[in-house]
Amino acid sequence: MIKVGIIGYGNLGRGVERALKQNKDMELVGVFTRRAPETVTTEGASAYTMDELAAYRGKIDVCILCGGSATDLPVQTPELTHTFNTVDSFDTHAKIPEHFAAVDKVAKENQTVSVISTGWDPGLFSLNRLYAQSILPQGETYTFWGKGVSQGHSDALRRITGVADATQYTIPNTEIIERLKAGEELTLTIRDKHLRECFVVLTDDADADSIREEIVTMPNYFADYDTEVHFISQEELNRDHKAMPHGGTVLHTGTTHENTKQVIEYNLYLESNPEFTASVLVAYARACARLANEQAFGAYTVLDIAPKYLSAASDEELRKELL
Amino acid sequence: MIKVGIIGYGNLGRGVERALKQNKDMELVGVFTRRAPETVTTEGASAYTMDELAAYRGKIDVCILCGGSATDLPVQTPELTHTFNTVDSFDTHAKIPEHFAAVDKVAKENQTVSVISTGWDPGLFSLNRLYAQSILPQGETYTFWGKGVSQGHSDALRRITGVADATQYTIPNTEIIERLKAGEELTLTIRDKHLRECFVVLTDDADADSIREEIVTMPNYFADYDTEVHFISQEELNRDHKAMPHGGTVLHTGTTHENTKQVIEYNLYLESNPEFTASVLVAYARACARLANEQAFGAYTVLDIAPKYLSAASDEELRKELL
Repeated sequence: MIKVGIIGYGNLGRGVERALKQNKDMELVGVFTRRAPETVTTEGASAYTMDELAAYRGKIDVCILCGGSATDLPVQTPELTHTFNTVDSFDTHAKIPEHFAAVDKVAKENQTVSVISTGWDPGLFSLNRLYAQSILPQGETYTFWGKGVSQGHSDALRRITGVADATQYTIPNTEIIERLKAGEELTLTIRDKHLRECFVVLTDDADADSIREEIVTMPNYFADYDTEVHFISQEELNRDHKAMPHGGTVLHTGTTHENTKQVIEYNLYLESNPEFTASVLVAYARACARLANEQAFGAYTVLDIAPKYLSAASDEELRKELL
Repeated sequence: MIKVGIIGYGNLGRGVERALKQNKDMELVGVFTRRAPETVTTEGASAYTMDELAAYRGKIDVCILCGGSATDLPVQTPELTHTFNTVDSFDTHAKIPEHFAAVDKVAKENQTVSVISTGWDPGLFSLNRLYAQSILPQGETYTFWGKGVSQGHSDALRRITGVADATQYTIPNTEIIERLKAGEELTLTIRDKHLRECFVVLTDDADADSIREEIVTMPNYFADYDTEVHFISQEELNRDHKAMPHGGTVLHTGTTHENTKQVIEYNLYLESNPEFTASVLVAYARACARLANEQAFGAYTVLDIAPKYLSAASDEELRKELL
């Protein structure tokens, strides 16, 4: 059995607890949290303070880090990798090289293994970009996200004065995707690829027109997109827009000889983004434990790990059943 | 530069020659054939007899084997792996374990590397089955093929007395695929998943009705499917049905907590099946050469190889550009 600790217990940590129940070769040791453990309602797992984690050295095979990329993981992953094998979902794309370097150093010095930046993007989408570009080097790769809820954009809406609550959906332009799949060569702007749809609850005294204007002109988040804004009640938002679906597409269109078109398409349709991300983390926790058993210490990303390490089945079974 | 030899020069061998031109880190040493070399028209490569291959020991980094799975590869891959690193597309699913064992023994004894059963199924589809099942263990995986030309089924048609020529298309049931993606749980028969469409040229004295009956009742090939038969002229067949498109879908529908649905879908749309398969072989030839450089001798399948080995880019570039 692979013994797992969950570090941080929000939506992602809860997803990991749920995913572990589907994997018979793994067992959950406990949830470690910065909150008072008695205030954390898990789905059965024991909750402990972060201070108690040190006592679990040698009793946990892999810690799955479920904090955020902005402030938690840049500190936590290197720190915990001193003592434990770790898996995280660090997703600030531009900072992955420095995060990797920091974690790799700690892992090699302390004979641990860390798998960073798992999940679906970075993660499964990265894998698909790599496979597709390696196989069809003469081609173009396009990544589309959605339809799904962007937490970052929803947060941006909620920071506006006069907005009580909000949910933002990122919507891929499916017509463009179909045209690319049909072999058209398109030069695409940001606006061509995605639409943004906002469901916004106003505070009592807010002015709808000025808030709509503030949203659609917000730099980085909305100004470069076609953005629809719907004002609804808190009751409607709670009823219809509190789930966390997401997904997306990695599309690679290439040519082999002359103009022979070849298309590779990878799609995810996710009813729960955090639960799916958690399931990816758990599969890579298995890989992490195996690499540690092989004493192959250091940091890894999904690009560095042979697919078979994700499965509980033996190499022989995989060759027989899955090839 | 990775120096490559092509062993066997049919559609697949020609595809490899074309694919190598798209990969700047690889160079083609020559084509080795059982035919008289002067009768082989390549696209620029020198052609040699199989007897001449032995003299290229140490001058070829990887031999890409482009023969058939029925009789060529079970003999050729173990034999050539005595002397060379090899890549093949052995695709008789049921015999992969024994082929692997035979090649692995030779490779370990002779300090070579062999990557067997690459291509797209087995190959990329196998990878996708493994990733999906490892991430969503509570779920079902479905593989659909087509729309595309099945060489095996076209050959079966051409063996019928009274058939001068023929092309068979395997057509996936897209309505079933959409229902599965929408979350329906379906128990599927062979007939539900694919249709078969045959374009047949008759000999002068052949009886269309009896041949149609012989086709649709042919065991293993057609009897279990809904099969359409169209009789056309050789001219029409040559004009409209001599390309080799193919493709397919690996669909995995899973659930995380309770009934939260998660769907992973991988699609290929290929205008040329042999050229795409050749492109996969070439990417794995790169992996093969790298594993040999690392002295990691033995046999491998796509499941055993870390994705980064397929790319010509450095680990640092991949982390920066693709994650």
